[in-house]
Amino acid sequence: MGKKVTIRDIARLAGVSVTTVSQVLNGKGNRFSKSTREKILKLRDEYQYVPDFHARSLIMKENINTIGVLVPNVSEPFFGSFVEGVQQVARQEKLIPLIFSANRDPKLEKAYLEQMVERSIDGLIIASARMTTEMINQALANRELPYILFDRNYDQVGTRVQTDDYHGGQLAAQHLVELGHQKFLYLGVNYLTENFKQRLAGFKDTLLANQLAFNDEEDVLRTDLSRQGGYEAARAVASSGATAVFTVNDDVAIGLLRGLRELKVRVPEEISVVGYDDIALDEYIYPPLTTIHQPIFDLGVGATKILLDRIDHKRQSEQVEHFPVRLVRRESTAPYRMV
Amino acid sequence: MGKKVTIRDIARLAGVSVTTVSQVLNGKGNRFSKSTREKILKLRDEYQYVPDFHARSLIMKENINTIGVLVPNVSEPFFGSFVEGVQQVARQEKLIPLIFSANRDPKLEKAYLEQMVERSIDGLIIASARMTTEMINQALANRELPYILFDRNYDQVGTRVQTDDYHGGQLAAQHLVELGHQKFLYLGVNYLTENFKQRLAGFKDTLLANQLAFNDEEDVLRTDLSRQGGYEAARAVASSGATAVFTVNDDVAIGLLRGLRELKVRVPEEISVVGYDDIALDEYIYPPLTTIHQPIFDLGVGATKILLDRIDHKRQSEQVEHFPVRLVRRESTAPYRMV
Repeated sequence: MGKKVTIRDIARLAGVSVTTVSQVLNGKGNRFSKSTREKILKLRDEYQYVPDFHARSLIMKENINTIGVLVPNVSEPFFGSFVEGVQQVARQEKLIPLIFSANRDPKLEKAYLEQMVERSIDGLIIASARMTTEMINQALANRELPYILFDRNYDQVGTRVQTDDYHGGQLAAQHLVELGHQKFLYLGVNYLTENFKQRLAGFKDTLLANQLAFNDEEDVLRTDLSRQGGYEAARAVASSGATAVFTVNDDVAIGLLRGLRELKVRVPEEISVVGYDDIALDEYIYPPLTTIHQPIFDLGVGATKILLDRIDHKRQSEQVEHFPVRLVRRESTAPYRMV
Repeated sequence: MGKKVTIRDIARLAGVSVTTVSQVLNGKGNRFSKSTREKILKLRDEYQYVPDFHARSLIMKENINTIGVLVPNVSEPFFGSFVEGVQQVARQEKLIPLIFSANRDPKLEKAYLEQMVERSIDGLIIASARMTTEMINQALANRELPYILFDRNYDQVGTRVQTDDYHGGQLAAQHLVELGHQKFLYLGVNYLTENFKQRLAGFKDTLLANQLAFNDEEDVLRTDLSRQGGYEAARAVASSGATAVFTVNDDVAIGLLRGLRELKVRVPEEISVVGYDDIALDEYIYPPLTTIHQPIFDLGVGATKILLDRIDHKRQSEQVEHFPVRLVRRESTAPYRMV
């Protein structure tokens, strides 16, 4: 393989300036003679010169249309679908999405964010439960860089796409109340981010409004935010006496279903389970999961479109776009009956 | 938010050259006076200057340690785990992995590859079933850029991590033969990449060596490479008369299990199913899936380490690292019995 040829090499070989080469190769060389243009193009082909992204960015100040997408964990189905939504818009709009998956590590999130800023990207989509607007602005070093927030950013300001988590919690409770259940459990996680708290609040308020008991001390279990976490909580869930369980998300619910199956606890006959998100997997597990639907793919599409809008028009005003949630009833919930 | 401050602004304000600012800010300014150094650092803090990645890359020629990772679809569990392996090494080695998910679109794969080259990245991990070494070298414009191939690159040369797909097919057949099955089916996909062909060859050869019938025309079904594809193939599988099915991968198997369940065909009592990959999900579905294990996370770790090795030492010789496969027996397979 040959050594990398730079724009300077081409300029030297052609006996012209770097600016001339740059303008000719970028189709802006009409003011130069035909022979100069042809000489440069011939050298480019001869040496298989590829314009250097860095150099071009500095010299041409052209719009490179790159967006950074920071997600907690790209291998979670939820964020996988979100990223697919981003990618669909990216393909249509000839954007390049750079995906950074920071594993829910705030230090890593900050480091990646700073890296994105250094890369002179055009905009950012940030899905982070723990970064505050202040932390983000600090990482962006107060640059005029458009960004949009996604997921778990309740306590924040800034342009974002959002669903109504409180209403999602209400829908889950309403469904289980209608099925006649009387003892409820919220399977939460150790670190309850604001959106999880909202779901819990909507769930609890609806139960209390129906004269049903729910106590934050006794009726909230905590586990790890993963399938494994749901799986490990099964024994505690089974011995809680609850017949209706609302989980923080579908991944946790899927783990719980596995754990209950191994303990020979029948779902939904003995315990009803409601998840959250409506990831594609819900229809493939057994029993198919009743859940609260979030339009995940559409959230990815929407976030990217709003971001593009901001990149193009440099809108300054805050913008919040709401997406609806709804109950999807499948087979993991059933009417309460005394066992 | 403030306007972006450049290194030129800092140089002008300090009354020194850009090179001086650059060297001081990069900790290489010992040959300048203490007052110059302090002046520059003070201006940096005052204007919240962030070194520009592009400028720095051009001026300092320092190693930025960025690797590009091209995968077909980051939202598939298989590639999700692979990327997690890459990220683990990246965190340890302070690398930045840029993830590009090209949706199995060869044009998009080529475009992304060219983008990565333009970004002056330090190395590449390419997981693509369809790109040949020739296409890759063309996209890299014959630069001296280390890259490593992963997954579905049988017919190619070049440094790569690899598992033995032929042996995987043998293991699946051996297991089903030992269970007494006599009529077999390979649930393949419309575009059989080389690694899928290898699995089929190992499967078929083992059956024939055991005096069992297998015919490429009748005993290979084709569907889409996805859970949905497996789901849609269920009716054809059920009516094929086969009691033992080997699928191209776990995603397809998981879809098939759902489809068979909806058709009231019992697994494993009526049909045994063997998947391929051993994605984490296999233990969470029902019945838990018997499959051929590939060390997916380890493949991500291994690919990244080999790539780093090449970046650091600029090794030129081809390197192929093999990772073992093995049968993982769960509950989707059972002894054949006449129904």
